[in-house]
Amino acid sequence: MRLSLDCIPCFFRQALEGSRLIGASSKRKKQILDEFASLIPSIPLSATPPEIARLGYGILRRASRGDPYKRIKIRSNRFALSLLGRLRKKVFSSRDRLLTALKLAIAGNIIDFGVKNNLDIRNELKKILSRESRAEQRRASVFHYAEFKRSLDSSGKILYLADNAGETLFDRILLEEIKRIYPGKEVLYAVKERPVINDALVEDAQVCGVGKFAKIISNGSDAPGTVLSLCSRDFKKAYKNADMIISKGQGNFESLSGQRRPIFFLFMVKCPVVAGESGCRMGDIVLLYSPGKGRKGSRAENR
Amino acid sequence: MRLSLDCIPCFFRQALEGSRLIGASSKRKKQILDEFASLIPSIPLSATPPEIARLGYGILRRASRGDPYKRIKIRSNRFALSLLGRLRKKVFSSRDRLLTALKLAIAGNIIDFGVKNNLDIRNELKKILSRESRAEQRRASVFHYAEFKRSLDSSGKILYLADNAGETLFDRILLEEIKRIYPGKEVLYAVKERPVINDALVEDAQVCGVGKFAKIISNGSDAPGTVLSLCSRDFKKAYKNADMIISKGQGNFESLSGQRRPIFFLFMVKCPVVAGESGCRMGDIVLLYSPGKGRKGSRAENR
Repeated sequence: MRLSLDCIPCFFRQALEGSRLIGASSKRKKQILDEFASLIPSIPLSATPPEIARLGYGILRRASRGDPYKRIKIRSNRFALSLLGRLRKKVFSSRDRLLTALKLAIAGNIIDFGVKNNLDIRNELKKILSRESRAEQRRASVFHYAEFKRSLDSSGKILYLADNAGETLFDRILLEEIKRIYPGKEVLYAVKERPVINDALVEDAQVCGVGKFAKIISNGSDAPGTVLSLCSRDFKKAYKNADMIISKGQGNFESLSGQRRPIFFLFMVKCPVVAGESGCRMGDIVLLYSPGKGRKGSRAENR
Repeated sequence: MRLSLDCIPCFFRQALEGSRLIGASSKRKKQILDEFASLIPSIPLSATPPEIARLGYGILRRASRGDPYKRIKIRSNRFALSLLGRLRKKVFSSRDRLLTALKLAIAGNIIDFGVKNNLDIRNELKKILSRESRAEQRRASVFHYAEFKRSLDSSGKILYLADNAGETLFDRILLEEIKRIYPGKEVLYAVKERPVINDALVEDAQVCGVGKFAKIISNGSDAPGTVLSLCSRDFKKAYKNADMIISKGQGNFESLSGQRRPIFFLFMVKCPVVAGESGCRMGDIVLLYSPGKGRKGSRAENR
């Protein structure tokens, strides 16, 4: 999807939050905002949000001389790992194990410090998992579960695009279930090459045990999404050859919506721009199938 | 008060809203944001928020070649005038007429399109006016009414700083009450010299009948607040000579808090930065007395 002009104030907010996170002084914080402001005129309207977010994060990383979200990622992994037993039990005891694992994987998308972090993770998890009745199920405005199952049945090669650290544990739950039902499938799990916000790296996938159920690869990039032009040749090959792509989080949706590949977007709607683009509501848990045939790119006009 | 770095994302949001208001194309909207972004590095941390908002609005005014908020101001005046009979009746029938008029004047501050306009004006008015019980009164975390009455009693010259068009009608209600109790006082009502957002100009004060109860003057500036360095010599003289200053709205608070003059700030708290600075909560109606002795400037560090 193309950048919405509403993303610009939001990028500044995120840059400011990041500059606070790294403990910058007022003067340094202002310099970070100044540097980001100086990039705005060079941003084309055709850019996707993760391309711009990457620029902002690059400024933060240079200012902090390291990985400013390292601690948050470690904390997120630990928190998620503490839930592992309960989450697996939840899956094992449910009538439709795949559905429960899928919902959990989407629920894991609330572990996200890139957007305003005002969600109480535990409560949110409870709420999402309790949506078992039909009436409550309807709250998930887009949930292409039948298509998801059909696609799993027929796909030989599956590419799973990770989002955040900690969330990787929830992905592992879904991957474990997929591997149980389809032990023969080739499943690749793609993380970012270099730190960007709290996005998962190889180590975050490993520590959450993803490696037992999928082959962990890097996408070769440090964009908080999947910006194909920035990805490695190997990743692009895997992307092209996959029969089914499972894409986690808003960043991957923002960078891949409208692409001509069979993608299942799994995410929580956390911002009004993505809500508008996906036709969902804020807070919705979404399983959106884009068969990859038809329109390329999204709306004609940046709002 | 000094700029908070949180104001910067908010200025971009306001610039975008303004560019939508003037019906700019996507390209033009982006140019407006680009132009504003290019100013950010030159903004000193010592600036007050209205000084920066003025720059942003200047870009919008040049882009629209006129007064982009003209229609909104006319509509606000009309809406407020339609309430006049009911508001006066409310004052006449209340036990403490001055208090009711004062509350109404603060309530009028909800007519503001410079900040996110998500308040239902009629409902908000009802709510504020119904806060008669002690328990509800307590919700107004700062309400220096005794000091206000004492100051009115002892002041010969009163300077009233206007905020928005439409709100001027609510100011007129308070001015009418002041004039009734103290017919001999000299009351000046200062509006902006040139259009800025929906701030009141001379015509907005006149159409709401302010002229019957106060002398309408201009402050000589087009900042959405009272930035003294930009005001006319005449206004600064009036400001210096006033025994009591009644200041309406956040913009005047942002530009005058910490000044060494006896000022009563009347406003609704509409943003978290002002909430932090004033020690009040979002949505509070505030009557804050700053005797003008003591600290100059506000916090030492921009957040």
